[in-house]
Amino acid sequence: MKMLRLKREEVIKKLQSLGLKVWKKVERKENPYVEIPIRSLSNVRFDEKTKALTLGNKVAKRYFFHVAHAKKFMQTLLVASFCKELLEQNLHTSLRDMFYALKRTLPNSKENTFDEQKESDPIVVDLEVALNVLREQLHLSADVRGRVVGNVVIEDRGDLIDWSKLGSGGWAIPSNVEDIEFKKVKAKFILVVEKNAAFERLHEDKFWKKHKAILLTTQGQAARGARRLIQRLSTEFDLPVYVFTDSDPYGWYIYSVIKYGSINLAHISDRLGTPAAKFIGLSISDIDRFGLHNWTIKAKDVDIKRAKEMLRYPWFKHPKWQKELKLLIKRKYKAELEALSGKGLRFVTEKYLPTKIKEKDFLP
Amino acid sequence: MKMLRLKREEVIKKLQSLGLKVWKKVERKENPYVEIPIRSLSNVRFDEKTKALTLGNKVAKRYFFHVAHAKKFMQTLLVASFCKELLEQNLHTSLRDMFYALKRTLPNSKENTFDEQKESDPIVVDLEVALNVLREQLHLSADVRGRVVGNVVIEDRGDLIDWSKLGSGGWAIPSNVEDIEFKKVKAKFILVVEKNAAFERLHEDKFWKKHKAILLTTQGQAARGARRLIQRLSTEFDLPVYVFTDSDPYGWYIYSVIKYGSINLAHISDRLGTPAAKFIGLSISDIDRFGLHNWTIKAKDVDIKRAKEMLRYPWFKHPKWQKELKLLIKRKYKAELEALSGKGLRFVTEKYLPTKIKEKDFLP
Repeated sequence: MKMLRLKREEVIKKLQSLGLKVWKKVERKENPYVEIPIRSLSNVRFDEKTKALTLGNKVAKRYFFHVAHAKKFMQTLLVASFCKELLEQNLHTSLRDMFYALKRTLPNSKENTFDEQKESDPIVVDLEVALNVLREQLHLSADVRGRVVGNVVIEDRGDLIDWSKLGSGGWAIPSNVEDIEFKKVKAKFILVVEKNAAFERLHEDKFWKKHKAILLTTQGQAARGARRLIQRLSTEFDLPVYVFTDSDPYGWYIYSVIKYGSINLAHISDRLGTPAAKFIGLSISDIDRFGLHNWTIKAKDVDIKRAKEMLRYPWFKHPKWQKELKLLIKRKYKAELEALSGKGLRFVTEKYLPTKIKEKDFLP
Repeated sequence: MKMLRLKREEVIKKLQSLGLKVWKKVERKENPYVEIPIRSLSNVRFDEKTKALTLGNKVAKRYFFHVAHAKKFMQTLLVASFCKELLEQNLHTSLRDMFYALKRTLPNSKENTFDEQKESDPIVVDLEVALNVLREQLHLSADVRGRVVGNVVIEDRGDLIDWSKLGSGGWAIPSNVEDIEFKKVKAKFILVVEKNAAFERLHEDKFWKKHKAILLTTQGQAARGARRLIQRLSTEFDLPVYVFTDSDPYGWYIYSVIKYGSINLAHISDRLGTPAAKFIGLSISDIDRFGLHNWTIKAKDVDIKRAKEMLRYPWFKHPKWQKELKLLIKRKYKAELEALSGKGLRFVTEKYLPTKIKEKDFLP
C-alpha cells in the first residue's frame, strides 16, 4: 500500500463499487457479503523494510444471511451509504455526529440501527481498511489537537495562510489536512514538540526563524491531523523530522506512533506514519550529558512496566533504544521537557537543540 | 476591581513595590511580611450587581519570622523575583517551567525551595490577588485550548492576522491574549461553542459569514486565554456573546464559568468573566421544542448530583435555570450538541441557531 491522495470522486467510486458488489449478489440470489481485512494483532506485523506496522493478508467475509453477521452487515452498509452522501454533498462531520445521524429504531421492531457509538466507530475503521482510504477521505473528522508555525504558505478552502505570520498563536491544525495545498515551504527540517509549553518557549525565542524550521506541537499524543500533516510535509518536501518529547515511556511512545504508526491503526501506518522521523530527545542519556539530574522525577511503577513492554516491541529493538529503556528501568527516574528550564529558560533554544542538531545526536 | 490592561512596566513596578515594602521592614529591623488576600470560600461571594463571583476584603499577613510562614514567605519572594526577571527580559513561560527553574536545594541544608509544583502554583495565585494582576501579565502562561474564526483582523507580535482567512483550521488561541490588538472587528455577536465538532460543522457551513458572527470553540472547559479573549471582544466592541453547550450540568457549568468566573479564580472574575454572556442552548426545554427525544442520553448519577448542587448556586437561581435543572433531575436524561445531527447535519446551522437567535430564546 502506497500513500494515496485520492480525489473525492475516486472515494465515491470505491463506495459505489462496494455497494454494487453487494447488489450483484442480491440479483444473482446469492448471499451478499462485504470483505473486511482482519485487524487483530494476529494480522499485524512490523515491516522491517518499510519500518512500519502493517496489516497482513487475512480477510473476513461479513454475510447478510448469517445470524452473527446480519446486524454488522447492515451497519456497514448504513455507514458506507452515509459516507457516500457526505462526499456527494461535500460535507464533513465527526464520528459522534455520524452516530446520532444514523441512530434510529428499525420500523416494526424494537431493534436500533446502533445503540452506542462504540458500534459505529469500528465500522468506520472496517471501511478504511476494506476500501484503502482514510477516515478523513470519508469526510469523517477525528480529534483535533496541535498547532504549527514556520516559513510555509498553504492554501486551504480558498484561503492563503502564511504560517510565519500568525503571532503567538500559530495555525490550529484541523482534523482533515487532505485538501491542503502547500504553496511555499521554506524549511530545512520539522521540529515536532510533544508539549505546548515547550512550543511556546521556542516560538517566543524565534527558534524556527533562526534555524529555518517548521515548529509543530502535537499537544500530547499526536492527533491524526497532526500525524498526516507531518507525513505530508516530510515526504512531499523531503524534510527531516525531529521529535522532541519527555524522557519517559509515554513520550517515547508518542515518538514511535509518529514514526511507525500505532497497533490499532496499523492498516494506515503508510499514510499516517513518518518512517524518516528521528528522536532528538529527551533520552535518559541526555540527562547525563546535559546535567539535568537535579530536575529528574522518580519513575512510577507504570513507567517501569511500560518500559519493560517496550523492550520487546520490534520497533524499539535498536540497541540505542534498548539502552535507554534499560537505563530508565535501572535508574528509576524520568525527566520532562521542562527540566531543561532548570538550566535557564533559553537553554533549550540556545544550547540543547542546536547542540543535538549540529552533532546529529539522534536516536533512530 | 475594574478590568485592568496593565503595561509591562506597570507590572514590574508593582513587583518592585512588593519587594521595597519588605526591604523597608528589614531596614527598620521589623518583621517583614507580605499581605495576601484570603481566597477560601469564606471570602468569596456572588455580587448580585456585577453578576460576578468576587473576593471579599479579608487579608492574611505572611511573615518572615514565623515558623509556619517562613518557607511560604521565601517562596513568595522567589516567585515574585522570577516574574520580575521574566518581565524585564520580556520572556514568557509556563507554571511547570517556573517550578523547574526555581527548584533547588538551599545551601548548607537539605531544604528545597520547592519540592512539588503544587507548592509553586498557589504562590502565583497569591501574587495575582495581592498585586491585582493576571497570571498572564506576570508572563506565566496557562493551558492552551480553543480556536476562533470570524471577520476580525488582529495584530499579535507584529503579525497582522485575518481570522477570516485561516481555511478550515482557524486561529489557535494562545495562552496569553493580553497584548493582542484588534485592528478590525466586523461582527454582530460571538458564538462560543463547547465542542470542536460543532465548531467545524458551523465553520464548514460558513455560519459565521452568513450571520456576521465570531465563531469560537473552547474545546471543553474554557482555558484562560479563551475566556479573556471572549471578554475583551465582548467589552471592547460591545458584542453579545451566545454560549452553546451540551444539555448537561457539565456544559452548563462551562457556560457559567465563561459568564461569572469560577470559584477558585473568583479574584479575577472581573477580568476573565463575561457577565453579558447568554445561553443559547442546549437546554432540556430545547429537547422538547426541537424534537430531540430520540437522541437523548440517560443522565448519570453524577449528573443528577451535580444538577442538585447547581440548584443551590446563587448564579443559577434564575427561575428559568431552576426549571432546567429540575427538568434534568426529573427526566433523568441529557443531550449532546451532536444530538442535533439526528435531525440532519445542517439542522444546527439552518434551523436551530437561526431560530434561537431570531426569537432571542436565551437563558440568562
